[in-house]
Parts: sequence; C-alpha cells; structure tokens
Amino acid sequence: MRYPEHLIKILNLLKKLPGVGTKTAERYAFHLLNWSDSQLKELAGALTDLKERICECPRCFALMDGEQCLFCASLERHRRLLCIVAFAKDVFAVEETREYRGLYHVLGGLLSPISSYRTDLLRVEELKRRLAEEGIEEVILAMDSTLEGDATALFLRRELESFSLSITRLAFGLPMGSALDLIDGGTLTKALLGRHRY
Amino acid sequence: MRYPEHLIKILNLLKKLPGVGTKTAERYAFHLLNWSDSQLKELAGALTDLKERICECPRCFALMDGEQCLFCASLERHRRLLCIVAFAKDVFAVEETREYRGLYHVLGGLLSPISSYRTDLLRVEELKRRLAEEGIEEVILAMDSTLEGDATALFLRRELESFSLSITRLAFGLPMGSALDLIDGGTLTKALLGRHRY
Repeated sequence: MRYPEHLIKILNLLKKLPGVGTKTAERYAFHLLNWSDSQLKELAGALTDLKERICECPRCFALMDGEQCLFCASLERHRRLLCIVAFAKDVFAVEETREYRGLYHVLGGLLSPISSYRTDLLRVEELKRRLAEEGIEEVILAMDSTLEGDATALFLRRELESFSLSITRLAFGLPMGSALDLIDGGTLTKALLGRHRY
Repeated sequence: MRYPEHLIKILNLLKKLPGVGTKTAERYAFHLLNWSDSQLKELAGALTDLKERICECPRCFALMDGEQCLFCASLERHRRLLCIVAFAKDVFAVEETREYRGLYHVLGGLLSPISSYRTDLLRVEELKRRLAEEGIEEVILAMDSTLEGDATALFLRRELESFSLSITRLAFGLPMGSALDLIDGGTLTKALLGRHRY
C-alpha cells in the first residue's frame, strides 16, 4: 500500500519547491500532519494572499508591501545612484550591508551564455527609460560573480555605453575570513589583479 | 529596509518546518512568489484539508485516507503477524520492501533514556488489548537501531513477556553496498555477533 492520496498530492506540491526531493517532501508532510489546525490555516492563508500582499514596484521592480515602493518614495535615498540587481531578493542582500543608500533596478534575470541568452526577458528598456528621465549619475552592476553574472554585466555595459554615466561593478576578491591556501585559484587571481594600495 | 511584512510572516511559518532555517525559508518564499495563483491556491487548499483528509486508524494508528484502514480491513494480510513501528511514516518504509504482509501497530513515539522516558505516551495499552483480542502469534519490533529504538524495544519486550507470542526484532548488520573499511565499529560488531551460516 502506498501513501493516502491526499498525502501524495501534498508531496507532489511540496516537491515543486527548490531543492525539495521525495525524502524532504515526506519529512515536511509528516511534520505538517503534526501542526495544529490553526497553524495549517495560517500557512494556507498566507499562501493564498501571497500574490495580493506582495507586489512589484512598477518603476524599480523591487518587492513592495503596500501602496508605494519604500525605495522609490523615500526622500532619504541618493537619487543619482542606481544599483542594478538580477532578482528582487538581491535587493535585500544589498540592503543588509547598510552601506548602500541609493535606488534599485531589478532586471528580472541573468543572461546565460549556455542555455538561454534572452536579453528580451531583462527589464533593459525600463532601465534605459529611467536613465533618460531620472538624471542618474552612477550605475552599480551588482551581479553574481558567475558566468551568468559576467555575461549580464558585459551586456549591460554595452547597452548603457551611450548614456553619460559612470558604470561600476562590485569588487572581486577574497571573501571575509578566507584562508589563502583554501581559496580557489580563480578568486585569488581576481584578488591579485584587483589589489589596492595599503 | 527589510522584507515586506507578509513575506516575513510566511518566512516565519516556513521556518517551522523541520530543518528549514532562514536561508532555506527565503529560498522557498521567493520561489513561491513565482508560483501561479492557481498553484498557490492548490497548496493552500491541500494544507487546509490535510487534517480532514488524512486520519489515523483507531486500531493500528496507521494513516488512512477514507472510511477504513487498508491494512486492518484487508483480507489478504496475515492477521497473526504484527509489526510494531514508532511512527506512521515507518509503516510506508516497511511497505516499500514488499516483504511484509502482516498487520501494523504504530506506537506513536520512541522512548528516550536521555530526555524523556515517557512510556505513557506510547500506545502500549492499545497494543496489549489487540494482543489479547486478535490472536497474534508473532510481534516484530521494527524500531530504529538507535539508543531510542533500543530503549523502546527493550521496554516492549518486558511489557509483552506475559503474552504467549514470539517477539522478534529487525536484524542488525551491514547495510547494502557497504565497504568493510568504511563501516563504523558498532555496525561491524553487530554484524559479527549476528553472523549466520552461509
């Protein structure tokens, strides 16, 4: 005999989450069976409301809660500085540093030279419109230090050539707390090439 | 700026799942944001119905779908053989082997000699009642090969002494595909002690 049908249904749904295979889905499902009715209802309700409660800012495409985007509407942020990230979640990673006080633009993806080089899926036209209208002086390319991040940064640099602005990219080098003998060669090469006066 | 409030709510709910910390919850939440409305509703509905659709058999405490327990109601299963497992999910692990065709009894937990030796939380009275009524001849203790599994098996062996039945426990030894030089000493000791004529 196999699992009850409803259990199979919920297993299949849970397996759609990233990195969740059969074993993890089973672990979650059996755990959920021990949740109280009110806890289950709370999670179900939160899922139902998800799309209504969280939406994208029509200008910078960061996630927003209510009526207005906290970044675009803020009077305290530097409005001449624009940080371009691939995904909405990257905005929160940059915010966590507390080092950046400018605006954002969420591209909505990365270009993959291997699988899909779909530049039309990125919000580049929207970006260009902002650059033309908003008087931005510096654009920070905050892409991953991966093949996809490199491809996207390169593409953007070319696309934005015609605008008179300073284009920068996040620094490459040793991550905090790293030991030289354990670091990969690629990172060490980047750290050497990017060395600074001390 | 931190996450939208609703996102924090769903993060906190997801973090209640076993083994899910902040990073995994974030990964799930951002993935869920890309689900379609109908997919989210399906998962929400499945969660809401979970407790109604899946219940415990009042006799063997295995999970059941509809009106009757597929094990207890089956005419094809050996009714003199009872496999005792700790949790409902263990039933499915035993079923997967396709080697067992008897009945089950789900204890509902394991005894922990370290944290809580709560014998009252196990369904032992229910088990004794079944043994007295159902004419069971062999009881298989299908507990984990852990400290908790050992403690529970030992406790059950003592509790069931007064019944005239054969009490067996799952074999200990080398797991399939294991190399002797990589196996732990405890397992190898059990495998030696439990060696059989070949």
